[in-house]
Amino acid sequence: MYVWLKSYRGEGEKDIGGRSLVKPVKVGLLGLGTVGTGVVRIVEGNQEDLSSQVGSPIVIEKIAVKNTEKDRVIAVDRAKLTEDPWEVIRHPDIDVIVEVMGGIDQTKEYILEALERGKHIVTANKDLMALHGSEILAKAQEKQCDVFYEASVAGGIPIIRTLIEGFSSDRITRIMGIVNGTTNFILTKMSQEGASYEEVLAEAQALGYAETDPTSDVEGLDAARKMAILGTLGFRTNVELKDVTVKGITSVTREDITYAKRLGYEMKLLGIADRRDDEITISVQPTMVRQNHPIASVNGVFNAVYVHGEAVGETMFYGAGAGELPTATSVVADIVAVIKNLKLGVNGLKAIVPYKQKRLQSDEHIMSKNFILLHVDDKAGVLAQITQIFAEYEVSLASVVQQPNEHNPDAEIIIVTHNASKASMDKVLKHFESLAVIRRIKSVYRVEG
Amino acid sequence: MYVWLKSYRGEGEKDIGGRSLVKPVKVGLLGLGTVGTGVVRIVEGNQEDLSSQVGSPIVIEKIAVKNTEKDRVIAVDRAKLTEDPWEVIRHPDIDVIVEVMGGIDQTKEYILEALERGKHIVTANKDLMALHGSEILAKAQEKQCDVFYEASVAGGIPIIRTLIEGFSSDRITRIMGIVNGTTNFILTKMSQEGASYEEVLAEAQALGYAETDPTSDVEGLDAARKMAILGTLGFRTNVELKDVTVKGITSVTREDITYAKRLGYEMKLLGIADRRDDEITISVQPTMVRQNHPIASVNGVFNAVYVHGEAVGETMFYGAGAGELPTATSVVADIVAVIKNLKLGVNGLKAIVPYKQKRLQSDEHIMSKNFILLHVDDKAGVLAQITQIFAEYEVSLASVVQQPNEHNPDAEIIIVTHNASKASMDKVLKHFESLAVIRRIKSVYRVEG
Repeated sequence: MYVWLKSYRGEGEKDIGGRSLVKPVKVGLLGLGTVGTGVVRIVEGNQEDLSSQVGSPIVIEKIAVKNTEKDRVIAVDRAKLTEDPWEVIRHPDIDVIVEVMGGIDQTKEYILEALERGKHIVTANKDLMALHGSEILAKAQEKQCDVFYEASVAGGIPIIRTLIEGFSSDRITRIMGIVNGTTNFILTKMSQEGASYEEVLAEAQALGYAETDPTSDVEGLDAARKMAILGTLGFRTNVELKDVTVKGITSVTREDITYAKRLGYEMKLLGIADRRDDEITISVQPTMVRQNHPIASVNGVFNAVYVHGEAVGETMFYGAGAGELPTATSVVADIVAVIKNLKLGVNGLKAIVPYKQKRLQSDEHIMSKNFILLHVDDKAGVLAQITQIFAEYEVSLASVVQQPNEHNPDAEIIIVTHNASKASMDKVLKHFESLAVIRRIKSVYRVEG
Repeated sequence: MYVWLKSYRGEGEKDIGGRSLVKPVKVGLLGLGTVGTGVVRIVEGNQEDLSSQVGSPIVIEKIAVKNTEKDRVIAVDRAKLTEDPWEVIRHPDIDVIVEVMGGIDQTKEYILEALERGKHIVTANKDLMALHGSEILAKAQEKQCDVFYEASVAGGIPIIRTLIEGFSSDRITRIMGIVNGTTNFILTKMSQEGASYEEVLAEAQALGYAETDPTSDVEGLDAARKMAILGTLGFRTNVELKDVTVKGITSVTREDITYAKRLGYEMKLLGIADRRDDEITISVQPTMVRQNHPIASVNGVFNAVYVHGEAVGETMFYGAGAGELPTATSVVADIVAVIKNLKLGVNGLKAIVPYKQKRLQSDEHIMSKNFILLHVDDKAGVLAQITQIFAEYEVSLASVVQQPNEHNPDAEIIIVTHNASKASMDKVLKHFESLAVIRRIKSVYRVEG
C-alpha cells in the first residue's frame, strides 16, 4: 500500500515530464469545532513547513460535521464536508483519521472501525483514551496502526512524548499536574482577587473558560481522566479511571485560600500520581502547594506537569492546556509523526504496551501531609484532647495554631501534619466526628512541598 | 546485519530447546567521567525496564578511558576498559557508540570513523555538535546512521525531542533559555544574598559547580554553543556559533542586580533566539527579566528553556541542566531510541536536515528593551541633553530616573527604553561616549518581559 518509502529516501518517482510525483497524504477529520478548526488552520497555514518535514503534501480530504450548512469561522470547501462520519472512516484514500469530535461510545465505534480498515488515528479525546485506551491500543497493535493522543492531556505541552521517549530511560516516581485550565483559572482568581467560588465560576462561564454545566471540570473528573493517561504512561502499567480517587473544588472557600496563603501555600487542583516500591496511587484533589514549588506559580488557564524521576530528578513542563491552536499544535505534530512512520513503513511498531502489573498502594501506604481546620468549643483542654487523638493514631504534627474565630464563639484550630498515612488520617477524622468538643471539621486538604 | 526486526514484531527465533534467542545490543562507551558513570548506573540499574521497552538486553561492551588503573566510583569489569578509543570504535559487535569524553577535533575524528563503520552515535558533546554538527549529521545521513544528542543541551530536559517532534507542526518564533547552570547559580546567589561576583564564583568553584578555569561558562561561550544547537532545531536552519553574539556575566555587579530588583527584574544569563519575518537573531547576554515571567524564577543550577510558537504560544521546560544522572537520563533515552530504530531498520531515516535558508537580522531589525545606567555631572540640563539624544535616534523611553549617587559627587541616571533597534542603541551609546557631561556609561543590559 505505501510506495513512499523510496521517495522518502530521496529517490522520488518522476512523471514523464521529469516532475516529481509525490502523492499527498490524505487525512480525514471527525469534528470541526474549536480544535478541528485549529487543525485546518495549521495544516493549511504551515503546509510548506509540514511537507518539507514529511516529504509530501498533507491534504485534509474529508470532514465530518454535525451540520454541513452551518457558517464556519474558516473557509472550508463545502464538498469536503459530510454529516456522515462513516463516509470519512470508509474513504479509501484516507490514511489518517483525526478525531476531534469528542464523545465516548459512538466515537469508540468509529475509531475501532477505522483501525479495522488499517487507518491510523490521531485523537484529542481524553475521555475515550482514559476509558477505552487499552482496548483501542490493542486493536491498533493487532492492525499495526498508530494511535497518537498527545492533545488529550495538557493541550500544547508535549507531555505524552516526554513520558514515552524523553524519560524512557528513567523510573518515574511522581507526576503532579495542573491539567485542568478551568479550575486553575477559578482558583487563581479566588487567590488573587479574594473572590468567592461562585463569583469566579460565573466569570469563567462568561469568558468561555467554563462550560454551562461545569461539573466535569469542577468535580475533578476531567483531571482524573488525564491523570489516568499520564499514570499509565509514566508507570507503564494500566491505570484505569476507577483507580483515581477524585475530589473537586466546589467546596473550596475564600477562607481556605486565605489560610493557605497565610501559611505560605497556594491552593491548586492537583493530579498526583505517586510510585513507591512499585506500588502506585493516583488522585486528584485541591491541594495546598508550598509557594516556592515550581508548580505553585502556574496561574490562570495554563497547565503544567511536574515530573520526578529517580535519575532525572525534578522537571516541569508548562504551557497552554487548551484552546484552538495550542491543542491543534499537538494534533498536527501527531499527524506528522504518523506520516513519518507511514513513509518508513513502521506504523504501530513502536507502541508502548503497559508491561507492569498494577499494584495500588493500600490506605496504609498512601502518604501525605495534611491541613485540617476545626471549629471547636472555646474552652480549656480541647487542644490537648485533639492533639492526643493525633498521637493515638501516630500522626505527627508540623504545626498547630489555636485562635478565636472572628465570626462566632467557637475557637479555630489549624493543624498541618507531617507525612501521615491515609488510613491513619481517616481514623483521626472519624474519631473527630464523635468528639463533642469539635463543632465542625471545617476543611481538610492535602499539602505538598 | 539486523535480524531483530522479526523478533521485535513478536516472532523471535527460538533455540533448539525452545528458548527465545534474543541477541543483546552492544554499546561502546567513550569516556567514564561523571556522565559516563551515570550511563553505566542507569543501563545496569534499569536494565529490566530498558529491555522490556526495546525487546533485548543492553550491554555496555567496551569503555575507553584515560587510565584503566584508576579507581572508579562504580564497579566496572576491568576487562571492558581500554585506553584506546579505536578499540571501541572498531569493535565488530558494537552497534552504538556513546560519546561522553568531550573534546572537539580528536573526538570528531572518532565519531566520523564510527559512522563510517555504520555505528550509531549518542553524544552529550555540545561543543562538538555546535561546531561540527552539520558535518557529522551529513555523514550520518550518508551512512544511514542515527546521531542523537539530547544530553548536549539542558541536561535532563528533553528539549531537543520537544523541538524536533513536539513542535514539528508549529513555527517557533522565540527560544529563550537559561542553559548554563554555573552562571545561573552565580547570579541567583548574587541576587539572593547580595554577594559579589568574585565571592560567589569562589563558592561555586568550591562546590564543584564551576571549573577551576570558568571562562567557558562565565563568558557565555557554553550557553552560546547550546543556543546554536537550539536555534538550528527551532528555526530549521543551520545556525553556527559565529552567528551567536555573546556577552558573559563577569562584569555584572551587585549594584546592577540591586537596580534590577528595584525595577522588578531578575538578572539572568539568557540565550535568546528570535525569528521575525523569517529573519533570525541569536544572542547570549545577561538580561533583566521581569519577575513575573516564568523564566525569572528559575534559580540555582536549574536550567529552563522557554519556547514561543505561533500556534502553541508560551511554553516552558524546566529541570536539572547538568549532573551525573540527569544528563545520563537523556543519554540513555537516546540509546533506547537508537535501539528501537535498529529493531525497525529505520536508523538515520528520520534525521531533520535544516532546510531553510539562513537570514540573520540586521542591526536595524534586532529589537530589544534596554536598561542603561549612567554616571553624569550633577548639574542642570544634563537630563535634557541625554533624553534629546535618545529622541534623535528614535529610541523611546519607558522610564527615566535621576538621583544622586551615594558614593561620589556624580548623579546617576537610570533609563529603561521601549523596544529599540540594536543599530539605534549603538548610535546612542557611541554618541554618549563623546558627551562631556557623561562621566561613565556604567551598565547596559537587555530587558525582557
